[in-house]
Amino acid sequence: MEKKLIGVDLGGTSVKMAILTKDGEVEEKWSIKTNISDNGSHIVKELGDSLNQKLTELGLDNQQFYGVGMGTPGTVNYEKGIVKGAYNLNWSKEQHVRDGLARITGLSIFLDNDANVAALGERWKGAGEGGANVVFVTLGTGVGGGIFAEGQILHGVRGAAGEIGHVTVMPENGYQCTCGKKGCLETVASATGIVRVAKEMAKEFSDVSELKQLISDEKEITSKKVFDLGKKNDQLAVAVIDRISFYLALALSHIGNMLNPEKIIIGGGVSAAGDSLLKPIVSYFEKMVFPVVRESTKISIATLGNDAGIIGAAWLALPDDEDQEA
Amino acid sequence: MEKKLIGVDLGGTSVKMAILTKDGEVEEKWSIKTNISDNGSHIVKELGDSLNQKLTELGLDNQQFYGVGMGTPGTVNYEKGIVKGAYNLNWSKEQHVRDGLARITGLSIFLDNDANVAALGERWKGAGEGGANVVFVTLGTGVGGGIFAEGQILHGVRGAAGEIGHVTVMPENGYQCTCGKKGCLETVASATGIVRVAKEMAKEFSDVSELKQLISDEKEITSKKVFDLGKKNDQLAVAVIDRISFYLALALSHIGNMLNPEKIIIGGGVSAAGDSLLKPIVSYFEKMVFPVVRESTKISIATLGNDAGIIGAAWLALPDDEDQEA
Repeated sequence: MEKKLIGVDLGGTSVKMAILTKDGEVEEKWSIKTNISDNGSHIVKELGDSLNQKLTELGLDNQQFYGVGMGTPGTVNYEKGIVKGAYNLNWSKEQHVRDGLARITGLSIFLDNDANVAALGERWKGAGEGGANVVFVTLGTGVGGGIFAEGQILHGVRGAAGEIGHVTVMPENGYQCTCGKKGCLETVASATGIVRVAKEMAKEFSDVSELKQLISDEKEITSKKVFDLGKKNDQLAVAVIDRISFYLALALSHIGNMLNPEKIIIGGGVSAAGDSLLKPIVSYFEKMVFPVVRESTKISIATLGNDAGIIGAAWLALPDDEDQEA
Repeated sequence: MEKKLIGVDLGGTSVKMAILTKDGEVEEKWSIKTNISDNGSHIVKELGDSLNQKLTELGLDNQQFYGVGMGTPGTVNYEKGIVKGAYNLNWSKEQHVRDGLARITGLSIFLDNDANVAALGERWKGAGEGGANVVFVTLGTGVGGGIFAEGQILHGVRGAAGEIGHVTVMPENGYQCTCGKKGCLETVASATGIVRVAKEMAKEFSDVSELKQLISDEKEITSKKVFDLGKKNDQLAVAVIDRISFYLALALSHIGNMLNPEKIIIGGGVSAAGDSLLKPIVSYFEKMVFPVVRESTKISIATLGNDAGIIGAAWLALPDDEDQEA
């Protein structure tokens, strides 16, 4: 029988888990609540127990698996299998996740951070179509990313490769970012960044606009509202979408000119805007990239949604010679 | 006896060649003139003959070599060993360089483009100190680059990875670049780009300045002149160096935030300016990068000069398990 994979997507509210074939097809999917009490000290034990229990239920044993791949918040030390700084799990101190989970399950454990694992999922079974050079950018509460180049995820010397949200797109007069510096892509292209840009642009906007009115009336607005009003041709919303598309295209053009991937995939909550976001980005992007890149690097919207994490995590456990390139 | 390496750096005026130990020490170095007559059809034959002759002279045979690594202008098809579009060699049509050279020498041949090969040299034996993540940026007539990430050179899907000279640093009101788009780093940070910036800034500059006077008198100025006057505290020159350092730092910050390499190395003719260039770049760079990158990604000036090409080329022929990491 062909060996299978296990993918685990550890988040601040739930732990998603799945059993997949070696071709990345999800056969079984379940989740448990993340127990962050007592400094998150129960997390590894509870998810390990849940895995063991599921394998027992299904009559499967360890020999039938290549191993467990897992995406986690925080900074991952790949050599030692240690996670630190995962504040939404209350893991402020170093956690020996790999060895802990291996002890409980008896399986081989492979770790990477959650943004990289989502990138791996979209690259393997989503919009990346198995390409060797694929970059994933996620637009949510923050802006994150993962870079898959020449067949592997890039980590950089201290694990900060793929910090696309902190690429400087406003080198002068930029907004303050939570990271400490100014003008980061995240300050204008995350869900909250888009609202910030809308509020700033509303100040200067004098034409009729429902969005302008909502902001003047101090109603709560969201990035989704901006895109919805854009579709209704609200002139302020159209201008806001144009502005944030410009900043996104600028950051994506740097990815294109430096890495020339076959695909740049946009995911996360904001990507639900679909073509309303994709079209203006592509239009700016094409003006900002080197001719060969314009012909060969394509931008698309993510297709896997919440499953990107478990699928990409599972890929980590796949032996090198089993990777299915498109 | 330990096997050796051969490095070849093919350029438009000369072909530099060297025999190196497997640790990258140059033992023998020579060059021939590049014969670009008859559509460059003699190039491969002449360099192959020169290699054979040198090995005979030295009493060495093919069994004593891992192979020949070679850097070439143009676009390299790595799978097929074909070079095309190397216009300074008069190679407008596809050239089967790998097979041709292998036939003449009986040695294994490994190709990459000249910018990547220089990056490999600096990374292996120069300022990169053998690191696994090193980016090389060369400031000369143009601006080029090579990215070494997680132990390998990145090529991208169509060979355009590392086109750092075409990163957009002036997204609005940028200068026209030879590549067809506007606002490329090359338009402001190449040797000619620096002169362009000096001439533009001179128009608005009203204080006393020798550089301003030279430009007003239509004297020929060079990027070296700008740096020399900067050292003498010429106020226009100081302002020009500040401006181009800002653009360079911006492009390098994108490298830092996306790839988090341990080193970004600046080479090429303009890098002879040394600290006068490095200091203002580092100062801007530190304001533009994510905190972890600020701590872990360092910028330095190249150290190998013209030998970077032959050394990096030789590295291509080194078997994977012989790479000497620092």
